[in-house]
Amino acid sequence: MGTERAAVTVIGLGQMGSALAATLVERGHPTTVWNRSADKARPLVDRGARQAATPEEAVAASPLIIVCVLDHDALHATLDPVADSLAGKSLVNLTSGSPEQAREAAEWARSHAADYLDGAIMTTPPGVGSPEMMFLYSGSRTVLDAHRPALEALGDPLHLGAEPGLASLYDAALLGLMWSTMTGWLHGTALVGVERIEATAFTPVAVRWLSAVTGFMTTYAAQVDAGHYPGDDATVDVQIATIDHLIHAAAARGLDNALPELLKATMERTRDAGHGSSSYASVIEVLRKGEGERAGAA
Amino acid sequence: MGTERAAVTVIGLGQMGSALAATLVERGHPTTVWNRSADKARPLVDRGARQAATPEEAVAASPLIIVCVLDHDALHATLDPVADSLAGKSLVNLTSGSPEQAREAAEWARSHAADYLDGAIMTTPPGVGSPEMMFLYSGSRTVLDAHRPALEALGDPLHLGAEPGLASLYDAALLGLMWSTMTGWLHGTALVGVERIEATAFTPVAVRWLSAVTGFMTTYAAQVDAGHYPGDDATVDVQIATIDHLIHAAAARGLDNALPELLKATMERTRDAGHGSSSYASVIEVLRKGEGERAGAA
Repeated sequence: MGTERAAVTVIGLGQMGSALAATLVERGHPTTVWNRSADKARPLVDRGARQAATPEEAVAASPLIIVCVLDHDALHATLDPVADSLAGKSLVNLTSGSPEQAREAAEWARSHAADYLDGAIMTTPPGVGSPEMMFLYSGSRTVLDAHRPALEALGDPLHLGAEPGLASLYDAALLGLMWSTMTGWLHGTALVGVERIEATAFTPVAVRWLSAVTGFMTTYAAQVDAGHYPGDDATVDVQIATIDHLIHAAAARGLDNALPELLKATMERTRDAGHGSSSYASVIEVLRKGEGERAGAA
Repeated sequence: MGTERAAVTVIGLGQMGSALAATLVERGHPTTVWNRSADKARPLVDRGARQAATPEEAVAASPLIIVCVLDHDALHATLDPVADSLAGKSLVNLTSGSPEQAREAAEWARSHAADYLDGAIMTTPPGVGSPEMMFLYSGSRTVLDAHRPALEALGDPLHLGAEPGLASLYDAALLGLMWSTMTGWLHGTALVGVERIEATAFTPVAVRWLSAVTGFMTTYAAQVDAGHYPGDDATVDVQIATIDHLIHAAAARGLDNALPELLKATMERTRDAGHGSSSYASVIEVLRKGEGERAGAA
């Protein structure tokens, strides 16, 4: 094995695409870049990247083509005209999209004899290149195995399975967790902020508390898989009684309470479904029942 | 200093009070217990606790009185008749309640010449006694300093300030964070579950992702304190575009979407308040404006 780094092409030089290309250049990969607005390539060329004049030239330059564009439509607008040149290439699609779009892209790539790996980047552009940041992949395991050094340069690659939609599905699920967590944290930060506690004082306590919460999640994950939710640590009934302290304290301080009110309503539906004495994990039972199903049951 | 452990009284032997008393007994503190229904004391007496026949006897037995009863009313029902015997005692109130109730209890204790420390237990009963679990305290710092070995036996004590309502306020804020996080996690677990991904497979990825999220929180805490939210990592506009992937994927799989819909609406209000190009931390600006204030502004 030589120490030579493999050539990589990066198509799409928004904030994220530029971070990917910059990291590859920095780790010594001969990196070819292309972007619809050519001026985005300038800072990367200054750092040692090679700018392709056309998508054809970009695809021809490397066995591994990483695409990170605005959306699925932009992906097709760029690659459809050069689809025939993708034969035998490894295509890694880091464009944000739905599981259905990932499946469609995998089919499209297969029809052009390209090996397809879909991916989701679980960090912000400044986090690219940190080995602790997760890059979720699904689709061709061969692509990951063949190009591991380049893909490991970007972050820690996790292969979730051969079904190409899985990375997008995990991405959506994990972003939902992020928005829920950050909004809950901001609500708590606003609450203590009324009493002149600074966010930088509250947040280390919140971060430490979250590590206890992840312990509860780990316990409850096994309950979810078993479909059995013993409430021996804390029951849904107890949580419903307790959330009123939050709702009253926040209302008394003039805060928006839509989030805790929704959480309480969800707990109450869980109790009404017969889970008052179950653990909080039983809330998943009502989340699985969307509007249509609930209306039908009523 | 002797190695003798200080005597402690625990009043209230529900799941949590029993865990507190059991831990103190285990760590060698002479422990006196009392509960309204006397039979709850039996397992603790078997382990070496001494059962007081009356609240008077319980209060007289130790310089440190820990109370963990159902609610504020139960606290007064138990202690009002023996209030005069509290003079010179240290009273630690671990009963769940509001900041206002904590302030009232502190006033009441002061009027009876007791030194008062309010507390919130940031774990479930099985977590009591683990040094990594947080016990939040506010009020008399003297109580904490005088009884540190007993209070450290229960968990890691954090003193938040002299204002007695702070522990309850933090408690409410942190529980809100927990419910938000756990509901977001359960929604994500339900989403990937439709594609037959087990909760025990998804959750380790979710836990790891949360450690990245706590990094964002730490960055954003400084932005909140500065009142300035540079969107150089990811903007509110980008989050709004991205959450549709979650909403569509969850709707297509028949899940309840009330939580992501609420998160999206909150982001849209943040954008409408002029923060489309700001970071997610700017969401706190709309959370600070409750219904009344919003109606007034409209």
